Amino acid sequence: MSDFNLNSLEECLEKHIPPNELKEVKRILYGVPEHDILELPASATTLAADNDFEIQGYRISAQKEHIRKPRIVRVGAIQNSIVLPTTDPVDKQREAIWNKIRIIIKAAAAAEVNIVCMQEAWTMPFAFCTREKFPWCEFAEEAESGPTTKMLQELAKAYNMVILSSVLERDTAHGDTIWNTTVVISNRGRYLGKHRKNHIPRVGDFNESTYYMEGNTGHPVFETDFGKIAINICYGRHHPQNWMMFGLNGAEIVFNPSATVGALSEPLWGIEARNAAIANSYFTVAINRVGSEEFPNEYTSGDGKKAHKVFGPFYGSSYVAAPNGARTPGLSRHRDGLLVTELDLNLCRQVKDFWNFPMTQRLPLYAESFKRASELDFKPQVIRE
Amino acid sequence: MSDFNLNSLEECLEKHIPPNELKEVKRILYGVPEHDILELPASATTLAADNDFEIQGYRISAQKEHIRKPRIVRVGAIQNSIVLPTTDPVDKQREAIWNKIRIIIKAAAAAEVNIVCMQEAWTMPFAFCTREKFPWCEFAEEAESGPTTKMLQELAKAYNMVILSSVLERDTAHGDTIWNTTVVISNRGRYLGKHRKNHIPRVGDFNESTYYMEGNTGHPVFETDFGKIAINICYGRHHPQNWMMFGLNGAEIVFNPSATVGALSEPLWGIEARNAAIANSYFTVAINRVGSEEFPNEYTSGDGKKAHKVFGPFYGSSYVAAPNGARTPGLSRHRDGLLVTELDLNLCRQVKDFWNFPMTQRLPLYAESFKRASELDFKPQVIRE
Repeated sequence: MSDFNLNSLEECLEKHIPPNELKEVKRILYGVPEHDILELPASATTLAADNDFEIQGYRISAQKEHIRKPRIVRVGAIQNSIVLPTTDPVDKQREAIWNKIRIIIKAAAAAEVNIVCMQEAWTMPFAFCTREKFPWCEFAEEAESGPTTKMLQELAKAYNMVILSSVLERDTAHGDTIWNTTVVISNRGRYLGKHRKNHIPRVGDFNESTYYMEGNTGHPVFETDFGKIAINICYGRHHPQNWMMFGLNGAEIVFNPSATVGALSEPLWGIEARNAAIANSYFTVAINRVGSEEFPNEYTSGDGKKAHKVFGPFYGSSYVAAPNGARTPGLSRHRDGLLVTELDLNLCRQVKDFWNFPMTQRLPLYAESFKRASELDFKPQVIRE
Repeated sequence: MSDFNLNSLEECLEKHIPPNELKEVKRILYGVPEHDILELPASATTLAADNDFEIQGYRISAQKEHIRKPRIVRVGAIQNSIVLPTTDPVDKQREAIWNKIRIIIKAAAAAEVNIVCMQEAWTMPFAFCTREKFPWCEFAEEAESGPTTKMLQELAKAYNMVILSSVLERDTAHGDTIWNTTVVISNRGRYLGKHRKNHIPRVGDFNESTYYMEGNTGHPVFETDFGKIAINICYGRHHPQNWMMFGLNGAEIVFNPSATVGALSEPLWGIEARNAAIANSYFTVAINRVGSEEFPNEYTSGDGKKAHKVFGPFYGSSYVAAPNGARTPGLSRHRDGLLVTELDLNLCRQVKDFWNFPMTQRLPLYAESFKRASELDFKPQVIRE
């Protein structure tokens, strides 16, 4: 289905389109005629070269204001493949991924990143395609006190960095319920809170409703030293109303840690998180894993095709979108990578003042309309001849 | 700001990117490795050639089903410039545009189009930039019985075609209120109903709140012989909740008649209507006018720049997006044009069954959350350290 010789869409456009036309193509496709490249220190780029991951840096600026100072924040998006075979012991698999990510977070620190976010369920293979509970549920851990959270608290404190860690959560206080959760760790190394995935897919290999239910944590926004942030986990990006509630709660950056494969969603990938940035006047950070993952037992994909063992390829292509509709290029479709983007958070309010989307939202109309549409005896507004 | 030597993004990609890579680029950017070209009859293409407008045809198919037959519908999207100088008498200006559009609708009939939609306020220049009421309000007419509606009723009947006509409406029953309205005329030539623009811009040259208020017609879906259709007028495309309500009322195709200019919105244009198609599992038809319009008196744009007389260029680029995320190429950025797209409406339900977006929508949660967010004493859900 997908030609993985194409490292990224942007590389292909840069290579073939003549410079003058390229500017206009990029203006239409990326919202800027030329990307503002962020110079990254050698300490970061060397780590990337030595450890075989991509690193890219961009800057998205705002206008100078009279009263507010610029609010410059660097966000890091990490995409990666798993490390060990899925047949290895669960703790070994997790540790190997930890080790890889520790190095990328170190590079993020060298690049002066303030907030870093990993992909969805980053400590494990995306095993939900199998519908098997064993051994995959062993990857689940307590959000507040699990080994991954503890490990990252050290790094967060050492690097003065907010870390968003999406894990499979085991909720022992509620009967060992499993959740798909993002843990927010403050730059002082404190557990700040968590968000549970609001919308759960039942599509293709994404048998996630087999493992966990719709989240019960609402739409929290975390007020950090580096801005108000929120997390819309994976499939939640298909639901504009989910994005909206994070905006209504005041988010300035919404991260979208994901795991999704090319044949399913690649044409949608550049659309959804970017539309959310536009509609809600905030930044979005879309993160997807890379590589293919082979499982010990054959499984079927609900598509009438034969049982098989490999899930993927996940197509990476992580990017940042801005409230004014501009976006960065994507990371590679198949390599581990760190995308560093320097944002001026003042752009959010500037875009609100310019476009007036919140002001023209007519929220009471939709509260009422959604309520009516939810009722069992809802009669759609249909006009017939 | 914009290089109008670029006729369309698609032409540029086709010209410069080698065939093998082009397939993958198109798969990522357009959701299909190759567009399915719809052969159009000479009677249609000759009209286009003779009258200097572009014509393009595409097909978007669905899977064969056991029980339902394919529901094949052809939609036509018309984009155009105005004809006479804006200093000419209002009735002459309107008549000249009528004459141009009559020919394009004739070509649509030759191409067996079932539903045709023109751009926003198609009978007039987009004079709202001026903030002048005279003579522009003279373009307003009764939705039910105005001269444009009457003229189109003849064509609709003659061609067995549903026609969506976006006009400035004069509502004499309510104190000569002015509205931005789309009139729906059935293929039997009957006035079927109307929809009034739900969200009104206050941005740049779009001084529309000077002329009319937020619509009071809800989110009607019109059940026609050719499927359930709705209209999201222009600025309403920035509001995902607006798109959603048309979906909740059962729309299979939502038209987005627009008027928007390059410097303001071109990078957003390919994102918003397409995101709506994906999120709501229906087809969307995004239509924008072309050309520049010169007004008799200087006006300012609220951007700190000098007063001027020309509004534009509008960038055309009309396109159709499908529920599975695929989209057609866009029409030209600067020529009049007719985009004919053959759709199988069965794709809507097929995509719903595949992706489950309506089922996973959690509407009661959002009805409640939007209600809370609308209240004067709303406290956003914020977590602090």
